[in-house]
Amino acid sequence: MLKPLGDRVVVEPVKSEEKTSSGIVLPDTAKEKPQEGKVIAVGSGVLTDNGERVALEVAEGDSVIFSKYAGTELKYDGKEYLILRENDVLAVVK
Amino acid sequence: MLKPLGDRVVVEPVKSEEKTSSGIVLPDTAKEKPQEGKVIAVGSGVLTDNGERVALEVAEGDSVIFSKYAGTELKYDGKEYLILRENDVLAVVK
Amino acid sequence: MLKPLGDRVVVEPVKSEEKTSSGIVLPDTAKEKPQEGKVIAVGSGVLTDNGERVALEVAEGDSVIFSKYAGTELKYDGKEYLILRENDVLAVVK
Amino acid sequence: MLKPLGDRVVVEPVKSEEKTSSGIVLPDTAKEKPQEGKVIAVGSGVLTDNGERVALEVAEGDSVIFSKYAGTELKYDGKEYLILRENDVLAVVK
Amino acid sequence: MLKPLGDRVVVEPVKSEEKTSSGIVLPDTAKEKPQEGKVIAVGSGVLTDNGERVALEVAEGDSVIFSKYAGTELKYDGKEYLILRENDVLAVVK
Amino acid sequence: MLKPLGDRVVVEPVKSEEKTSSGIVLPDTAKEKPQEGKVIAVGSGVLTDNGERVALEVAEGDSVIFSKYAGTELKYDGKEYLILRENDVLAVVK
Amino acid sequence: MLKPLGDRVVVEPVKSEEKTSSGIVLPDTAKEKPQEGKVIAVGSGVLTDNGERVALEVAEGDSVIFSKYAGTELKYDGKEYLILRENDVLAVVK
Repeated sequence: MLKPLGDRVVVEPVKSEEKTSSGIVLPDTAKEKPQEGKVIAVGSGVLTDNGERVALEVAEGDSVIFSKYAGTELKYDGKEYLILRENDVLAVVK
Repeated sequence: MLKPLGDRVVVEPVKSEEKTSSGIVLPDTAKEKPQEGKVIAVGSGVLTDNGERVALEVAEGDSVIFSKYAGTELKYDGKEYLILRENDVLAVVK
Repeated sequence: MLKPLGDRVVVEPVKSEEKTSSGIVLPDTAKEKPQEGKVIAVGSGVLTDNGERVALEVAEGDSVIFSKYAGTELKYDGKEYLILRENDVLAVVK
Repeated sequence: MLKPLGDRVVVEPVKSEEKTSSGIVLPDTAKEKPQEGKVIAVGSGVLTDNGERVALEVAEGDSVIFSKYAGTELKYDGKEYLILRENDVLAVVK
Repeated sequence: MLKPLGDRVVVEPVKSEEKTSSGIVLPDTAKEKPQEGKVIAVGSGVLTDNGERVALEVAEGDSVIFSKYAGTELKYDGKEYLILRENDVLAVVK
Repeated sequence: MLKPLGDRVVVEPVKSEEKTSSGIVLPDTAKEKPQEGKVIAVGSGVLTDNGERVALEVAEGDSVIFSKYAGTELKYDGKEYLILRENDVLAVVK
Repeated sequence: MLKPLGDRVVVEPVKSEEKTSSGIVLPDTAKEKPQEGKVIAVGSGVLTDNGERVALEVAEGDSVIFSKYAGTELKYDGKEYLILRENDVLAVVK
């Protein structure tokens, strides 16, 4: 299991549709990077200036929208994840 | 529903008039980006250095003026939104 | 009405004389941008690190000197305004 | 009267001698910018992180040394002033 | 023994497999830098703005994922280590 | 007298030997800038984030080592001084 | 004696072996800069945002590992030292 540190979250990106509307399968580099994902694990929180931890706003299982290209890609147990700072998460989809 | 994080707000931009005064319909790229919008959802507030949240000044339903090009464009449920930091909102129109 | 956010102020610039001393009317781009203006509306104040708001020093009706090129130009109800951060206001003229 | 904001001061620069030692009057651009001046007005002080104002160290009437090229030049009532941040004032001459 | 300072950790990188799937041994520069490692020693913690130390989240013996190219490489007692700031550690593998 | 502001100190640089070991007098630009000096005056101290002044560590009369090229050169009463931030003073020679 | 200021330490670098394994004495510029040293003197500590000093983690006599090229080289009493910020010290060798 991956336990992110601090204000980080582990997100499993939702793959965008791999066919264009005309039905042509695009090669990998032509696809836009995913912007939506599911939170798999969250860190212990933001460390404030006076040394306390503030719990993150997002929780395990949340569907989130995040900035394109944000975070670090990581292959773990054969699956691809992103490790993002909560700050790169724009919104939760409810 | 989109719930923005922290000091972010979701704004639905007000489309600017698509015809110039001479009546010519401009192609998409020639139009100035919208500067006005309606707040659809607001985040939980700014996290201060000592770990408290301060509620945002803008509220759902407000008409706001925001910096051109600020924020991230997002298509959700077929509509286009912007996710802005409150700091990019210049003023509320009352 | 425009209500600026936080440490911002709405200023109506004082138009500088549009004729040069020789009486020639200059085209728009040759004029120096205005440096003086009248405060039309002020924000709710600066948000400090511990989450309190400190009222601005400038008040509605003040004549102010501000940095050339500072702020964002805004056309509202047919008039031109500037939205500035108080930090771009150099001095009040009394 | 000019009342500077925050940590700013209004300084009237002391003109440096306009002739070189050989007696040649230099054109304007060849002169070194003034480094000494007299404080005409001071702001209300530095706003600290916890929202208090700390009075400036310099006072009206002080002779000060300031960084070359610092601040904003301002013509007011036919005289030339500089608006500087106190941080650009290096020392007081006593 | 190496005792890292402050928010630093000493990590022994896990060597990635030196053969590609086709069985060809790659020269050193073609290999991707390791992203996983074992924590050998941890610093005394983060120094907060009010002068207290907050213990690190990672502990000796943890398996960690860290940013590629982060930290400083160090040869000590014939072995290669990395000294990283805890901030460059993305997650703990449990 | 020069009274530096805040965390600044006025230093009289110790002139380095103007002859090289071979006895040749070097032109001005070939000499390395002085790195040692004597503190002539000190400011009122560092202003902390909560608005208090912390007295400087260096005192009038101290011999100090400072970063090459740090600070602002100043000619005052015919003598050359440097105004440095205390942060540019590396060590006191005792 | 050199007394460093604030968060600085004076380090006497440990000279790396001046011969390569093949026995050739390398000219000065070809040698890698030292990464290990002995702490000769330490400053009074880090000044926190609320104006207190926090003692450094390293102490006189410690063997330390520090970033290559960090700090300022200083010749004093015929010996070569480095003045480093504690932040450039990576670890203590125990």
